[in-house]
Amino acid sequence: MNYSIIRYILCRVLEFQALFLALPCVVSLIYWEKEGWAYAIVAASCLLIGGLGKLKKPKSTVFYAREGFVVVSLSWILLSVMGALPLFLSGEFPSYADALFETISGLTTTGASILADVEALSKCNLFWRSFTHWIGGMGVLVLILAILPLAGGYNMHLMRAESPGPTVGKLVPRVRHTARLLYGMYIFLTVVQVILLLITGMSPFEATTLSFGTAGTGGFGVLNSSIGSYSVFSQAVITVFMILFGINFNVYYLFFARKPMQALKHEEMRYYLGIILAAIVLITLNIRGSFQSLFEAFHHAAFQVASIITTTGYSTADFNLWPEFSRTILVMLMFVGACAGSTGGGIKVSRVIIMLKMVKNELSHLIHPKRVRQVNFESRVVNKEILRSISVFFIAYALIYGASLLLISLDNLDFTTNFTAVAATLNNIGPGLNDVGPVSNFAVYSQPAKFVLMFDMLAGRLELFPLLLLFTPYTWKRS
Amino acid sequence: MNYSIIRYILCRVLEFQALFLALPCVVSLIYWEKEGWAYAIVAASCLLIGGLGKLKKPKSTVFYAREGFVVVSLSWILLSVMGALPLFLSGEFPSYADALFETISGLTTTGASILADVEALSKCNLFWRSFTHWIGGMGVLVLILAILPLAGGYNMHLMRAESPGPTVGKLVPRVRHTARLLYGMYIFLTVVQVILLLITGMSPFEATTLSFGTAGTGGFGVLNSSIGSYSVFSQAVITVFMILFGINFNVYYLFFARKPMQALKHEEMRYYLGIILAAIVLITLNIRGSFQSLFEAFHHAAFQVASIITTTGYSTADFNLWPEFSRTILVMLMFVGACAGSTGGGIKVSRVIIMLKMVKNELSHLIHPKRVRQVNFESRVVNKEILRSISVFFIAYALIYGASLLLISLDNLDFTTNFTAVAATLNNIGPGLNDVGPVSNFAVYSQPAKFVLMFDMLAGRLELFPLLLLFTPYTWKRS
Repeated sequence: MNYSIIRYILCRVLEFQALFLALPCVVSLIYWEKEGWAYAIVAASCLLIGGLGKLKKPKSTVFYAREGFVVVSLSWILLSVMGALPLFLSGEFPSYADALFETISGLTTTGASILADVEALSKCNLFWRSFTHWIGGMGVLVLILAILPLAGGYNMHLMRAESPGPTVGKLVPRVRHTARLLYGMYIFLTVVQVILLLITGMSPFEATTLSFGTAGTGGFGVLNSSIGSYSVFSQAVITVFMILFGINFNVYYLFFARKPMQALKHEEMRYYLGIILAAIVLITLNIRGSFQSLFEAFHHAAFQVASIITTTGYSTADFNLWPEFSRTILVMLMFVGACAGSTGGGIKVSRVIIMLKMVKNELSHLIHPKRVRQVNFESRVVNKEILRSISVFFIAYALIYGASLLLISLDNLDFTTNFTAVAATLNNIGPGLNDVGPVSNFAVYSQPAKFVLMFDMLAGRLELFPLLLLFTPYTWKRS
Repeated sequence: MNYSIIRYILCRVLEFQALFLALPCVVSLIYWEKEGWAYAIVAASCLLIGGLGKLKKPKSTVFYAREGFVVVSLSWILLSVMGALPLFLSGEFPSYADALFETISGLTTTGASILADVEALSKCNLFWRSFTHWIGGMGVLVLILAILPLAGGYNMHLMRAESPGPTVGKLVPRVRHTARLLYGMYIFLTVVQVILLLITGMSPFEATTLSFGTAGTGGFGVLNSSIGSYSVFSQAVITVFMILFGINFNVYYLFFARKPMQALKHEEMRYYLGIILAAIVLITLNIRGSFQSLFEAFHHAAFQVASIITTTGYSTADFNLWPEFSRTILVMLMFVGACAGSTGGGIKVSRVIIMLKMVKNELSHLIHPKRVRQVNFESRVVNKEILRSISVFFIAYALIYGASLLLISLDNLDFTTNFTAVAATLNNIGPGLNDVGPVSNFAVYSQPAKFVLMFDMLAGRLELFPLLLLFTPYTWKRS
């Protein structure tokens, strides 16, 4: 393990954290809030520690996949630990552990809160919560790769460890250009959403924070009613943009590269939109009776489906009170998640589709044992190594799921609450059912259970293995 | 597809069914019950249809894995359809669908009932319910293989399709001798249990039926309180025998072949006993407060743990009322299940352990990508093909699970009930939590939902693929 390069990159991450923390400082100046001091102090500390720590250049630039996973995991933990400080120092959170929960929930784009009354928060704290979604959505190290001239062959290792999906491909040959393109498209879509929300009549503060939450598929709102009290138009804009941010960014790149036909043929996107459509239709029919009109039922079904499958977690209605069929569809969507290469979480549509195809392939193989085994996806044969890694991912996912469920059951809340609390955190969604439903919050859990759920949020965002590696002793051996 | 050989084997299965049905006939003579007529008529019909149908010898003896899967699935469906008839004709079941549910539940050794009052049933019906557990536990085709001189290479295909576990090995070179050995050990253990239960003071009828239910890891009792009203000694005997029937029968063969050291080193058995011990300790500590003494808590914890992990489903206490931590442990055990090569259901201990090792292997591979990938189990390297098939099994399992959960949620029962109803049927356990808890029954579900659960019971017993193949069009093509 090359410890010096890890130290070096973590220091650069701290410098970026200082930059991020400067934004809520600006917000506090606009609204003349004293909480801004907390951000200023923490930002200055990050700058100081980062600046001093990186003075000593790394002894060696040897950088393998192992270093990539460790740096990414540690970066996310460091960002969470430092990012929680201003929330805690502002005095608006009951404890540091709660502030940490909120920050991890923000960065991992989960959106699960421990607060009952978010409207009581200062504007700069609200802004910071939403901004962490935006940073976490596309990834911090991807941002660093886009900006800093990091030399050496480790760029791809960092990108792979932070980006979601079964395979992480580069859009263009150079990692740095890929990272820039991704952030370019990300900023463009966010700005378009802000403008549209302003047109529908939102205040600049709301339009910005809610767009951050949509872009990162996060889910922190600025009102206690989440998105429930905005106009139908605002809600519709958010519905559309949630769906857009759940699409594989390769699709946008194909449009950008003037290959619209190839973009429209993107298999993962087609399945993703198909699942959304099917879920909206089924839920609309199922909840029809509880709403004034078919349109209203459709509107709320569409919003909730888009919110859950993209793992955003905003809500316009208390879906916890919906019939069990609709609730179960939403729970299923929690697991499916958004497309790989998007800002959304969950298992990812491509993994689910490839797994379905593996089962189909197995059936045909049992009948014709001599036929060649292969699974096609996106018009190509899927490499066996990828099939294997998807299987192992799913197994690890189920094991972490089971272990988490068992640990939090010690709090003696009901099974549905526990089951969906793990689903909502491991898939980076936010709300679950029953006691962690859209009008409830995670304050019902004890501190130990909250730490289990914090682990799940980080594990979910980083797709399990980078975080698991921190806990395996052989990661830390000098080789 | 060789249809004529399928017809021929199904006719032989019907002849065996006639034999099975003769037993409740005898019971009805002992207790002088008129319901015996129903059994006599159905047995005669089976004998007639089977005898006539097999007159025409199969044109060809070509027999591949495909035929094996299809014959096994169709045999189980045929046994269920015919076995349900006397229950229905006796007038003690509200509908034929309910009688079918009960029979499938019996044969698949699930033990989920749609009856609130089993004590109202006639003795011959009670006997038949328990006897189906015993037949289904070791398997009908395994029994046929042990008795009939079926020529040709298809024996192994039949055995593989019916026996549970990731790999099905022969104990001795000949399939027929293996089948005889398995049934020999099965009968021996059952007889020992009957004798011990008689010694603890049970009536011969109870000792026999409850031993059938234990041996097949079924779970149908003859009293409404399941095993709750028997003496502590009877309960202790059943606890021990449930655990014994959940052990891989290879272990007993090793003892039989005078290789006790090898038997004691059996890795799956060690993990299985370790999991049981850990679960008993944790639950005992968790439920300590609800019982008079530590011993009583231990006694009930041990019974319930043994009952659930072996997928039997007997109960001595309403674990639905236990604290959530204990409930969650039991739900976990539902998924783990018993050892491969036992009469128990679930995912099987060996699959779970191999999956855990796959994840561990993946972690070490991420750190040292050049190291050779391999997973060891039972002192051997596990073949890659087996690793692949375990993964695909688990994926198919999760998909069937999700689809079933969604379909039965249309009944609008709560999530915990639905989730554990699928767990209890797909893993062939019996009771779940909430509305399908140990003192409740499956009558709460509508007929369509019951058919979904019947599918799950059969799919669980036959380990998914044989049953799924019935629904894939290419299975039925003549090649």
